Amino acid sequence: MKQPLSGFGNISRRSLVSTFAALPVLLGPLRSIPASAQGADPLPSWNDGATKQSITDFVAAVTTAGRPDFVPPDQRIATFDNDGTLWIEQPMYVQLAFALDRVKALAPQNPDWKTKQPFQAVLDHDMKALAASGEKGLVELMAATHAGMTTEEFEKITSDWLGAARDARFKRPYTELIYQPMLELLAYLRASGFKTFIVSGGGIEFMRPWTEKIYGVPPEQVVGSSIKTEFQMRDGRPTLFRLPEIDFIDDGPGKPVGINEHIGRRPIAAFGNSDGDLQMLQWTTMSGRRRFGLIVHHTDAEREYAYDRQSHFGKLDKALDAAAINKWTVVNMKSDWKKVFSFQT
Amino acid sequence: MKQPLSGFGNISRRSLVSTFAALPVLLGPLRSIPASAQGADPLPSWNDGATKQSITDFVAAVTTAGRPDFVPPDQRIATFDNDGTLWIEQPMYVQLAFALDRVKALAPQNPDWKTKQPFQAVLDHDMKALAASGEKGLVELMAATHAGMTTEEFEKITSDWLGAARDARFKRPYTELIYQPMLELLAYLRASGFKTFIVSGGGIEFMRPWTEKIYGVPPEQVVGSSIKTEFQMRDGRPTLFRLPEIDFIDDGPGKPVGINEHIGRRPIAAFGNSDGDLQMLQWTTMSGRRRFGLIVHHTDAEREYAYDRQSHFGKLDKALDAAAINKWTVVNMKSDWKKVFSFQT
Repeated sequence: MKQPLSGFGNISRRSLVSTFAALPVLLGPLRSIPASAQGADPLPSWNDGATKQSITDFVAAVTTAGRPDFVPPDQRIATFDNDGTLWIEQPMYVQLAFALDRVKALAPQNPDWKTKQPFQAVLDHDMKALAASGEKGLVELMAATHAGMTTEEFEKITSDWLGAARDARFKRPYTELIYQPMLELLAYLRASGFKTFIVSGGGIEFMRPWTEKIYGVPPEQVVGSSIKTEFQMRDGRPTLFRLPEIDFIDDGPGKPVGINEHIGRRPIAAFGNSDGDLQMLQWTTMSGRRRFGLIVHHTDAEREYAYDRQSHFGKLDKALDAAAINKWTVVNMKSDWKKVFSFQT
Repeated sequence: MKQPLSGFGNISRRSLVSTFAALPVLLGPLRSIPASAQGADPLPSWNDGATKQSITDFVAAVTTAGRPDFVPPDQRIATFDNDGTLWIEQPMYVQLAFALDRVKALAPQNPDWKTKQPFQAVLDHDMKALAASGEKGLVELMAATHAGMTTEEFEKITSDWLGAARDARFKRPYTELIYQPMLELLAYLRASGFKTFIVSGGGIEFMRPWTEKIYGVPPEQVVGSSIKTEFQMRDGRPTLFRLPEIDFIDDGPGKPVGINEHIGRRPIAAFGNSDGDLQMLQWTTMSGRRRFGLIVHHTDAEREYAYDRQSHFGKLDKALDAAAINKWTVVNMKSDWKKVFSFQT
C-alpha cells in the first residue's frame, strides 16, 4: 500500500469506481459551517481575486430578482463531486482504502486468500499484482468487501471502519480531510436558496451515512455508484440484501444520467476536479443560459497534494482543456485558498 | 380500447409497468391544496371515524416531542404510490393510454404497422391481440413510444399529450382525476414536517413534469420505473438520449430497492392501493417501531370504481390480506371519503 499510484497505473478511474460502489460509514461531529452566509464574507477561506469573484458574481446574477439571469429557488440545483472536490482522494480513494482494509480484516476467516488473487496481492501489499488482476480482480474484491450482507450490516461495517481509520500522512480521520473552502461554498449556496447535491463516482451507500453531518447534504441528495440490492424477508423481517453485481456507475458520462435519474432537473452550477466530472460540467453549463462550472485544481503539494494530467486518481486532463474553452472557473488551490483543511492555520 | 380489462387479463402489472416506464408530461394549474393543515380540520374530505383517526393519531404520536414514538423531522419520510393511490388507474393506467394514443399518432409515419404486431392490435383496438403479443410486444410498444428521443423531446411529447387527453368517462384531463382526500393527506403530512415522496411503478419521467404542480411533490422526490438514457453530444449540445432498454422496475419488491436507491432512508409511513405496494408497506412498517401503512380500497363504483382481488390493473389481493395481519389502515373509499375528486360535491 506504499505506492498505490504506480501500482494502479493501468486501472481506469471508471473501472475502479465501478468496482467500489456503495457503502455506509461514520461520522465525526458536525463541522463548523458558518450558520449564515449572508454576513460580511460568506467565503472567508477564499482569497480575494478572480476565482472568488466569479462565484459571488454568478450567485448574485441568478438570485437577484429582476436581473436577466434570475433563476427561481426551486431550480437552483448545484451538484458537487466528492473525491478530490470535497474531500481528499490521495494517495488513493478513501473507499479503496476501505476495501483493502476490509480484505485484511476478513483474511483470518478466508485462509485460501493467502494464495488466491486478487486477495493475495492485497495481503502482500503488492499493488502491481492487484492491478494485474484487472477488472475481474476488482469485481472479486468488491464482491468480497461490499456485497453479501444487508444494507444495515454494511452501514455498520463501513461506519466502524471510518470511525477507526486514519490517513497515513495527516494522522486524522478521513472525515476531517474535507476542504474548508468548499464547506463554505456549500453553505453559501444553500443560504442563497440552492439545493446542494453530491454526485460522486464513489458508492452511494458509502457516502450517505455521513454526508449530512459532514457536508450538510442529506441522504436523499446524494447520487453515486451502486451495486444491486434485493428485497428479502429474512427471519420474518424485511431486508435489502447487497448483491455482488454492479448496478450503476456514476462517473464520466454516467453523471448526467445519474443526475437526471435522481434529481430530474438540470443543475445550474456544478463543481468537480477531474475528467470524471467533464460531462456533468458540460451538461450543466452548455444550456445557452448563464450557468456556472468550477474545477478544483490540486496545486498545493505542501498543504495537500499537487496533481492533474498524469494522476492515477483524479486525473484532470480533458476537463482542464474544456475549462478554458467553456470558461469554467479553475481554482488554484495554492493561491485561491487561505487554508485547505480546517485544522490548518 | 373498449374492454382493456379483459384484453389485458394475462399481462401482469409488473411486466406492464416495466414496459411503460419513464415519460414527461403536462400540468394543469396548481390544485387548491389547503395552505396549512394546522387549522380546524386538516382532512376535510375525510369522514370522521376509525380510518381518519388512525392517521391523525399516528401523526400526533411521531411529531409530538417527548412522546415515546417521536421521530425527528429529517426522518419523517412518507412514500406514496401514484396509480390508484393518488390518481385514477381505471380503465387502464394513464401511461398505457398515452402509449396507445402515441402509436396512433405515429402510425402515418409507419405504414408497416398496419400489418405488424403489436401495432396492428393497437390500431385495430384489439386488446386481446395486444395481450397475446406478450412482453415482447409490450417492449416493442415501449421502444416505439418511449425511446429514441432526447429527454427534452420526450417531455414535450408527453406534456402535449396530457394537455389534450381526456378521460372517456369523466370527460376531464387526467390531472383533474386525482383524489382530493389524498391531496389533503399530502399537505397535512408536509405541514407536520414530513417529506413526501412518490414511489410509483409508472415511469419516472412520465410523472416528474407535473407532480410538483399537481401534488406539491418536486421532481427530485419522485421515484419510478425508468428506461436507460445515454449522454450524447449532438450538434455540439449535451443531451440525454432515451434508449429502448428497461433500466429499473419500481414495482413490488422493486419499491424498497427504489426507495433505498433514491431516498436512502427507510420511510416511516407508506400509502398504496395494490399488491405492487406490498413490499413497500412491509419495508416501511415492519421495523419494530411505530410506523404507518395505508391502503386505498376502491369500493365506490358510483363516484369512481370498485375493484380489488380480480382487477387487471391495481390488483389488491395479497396486500389486502397483509393489511389485516400488519394492522395497516384500509380506506373504504365509499364510506371514508366525502368526495373522491375535487369537482364532486
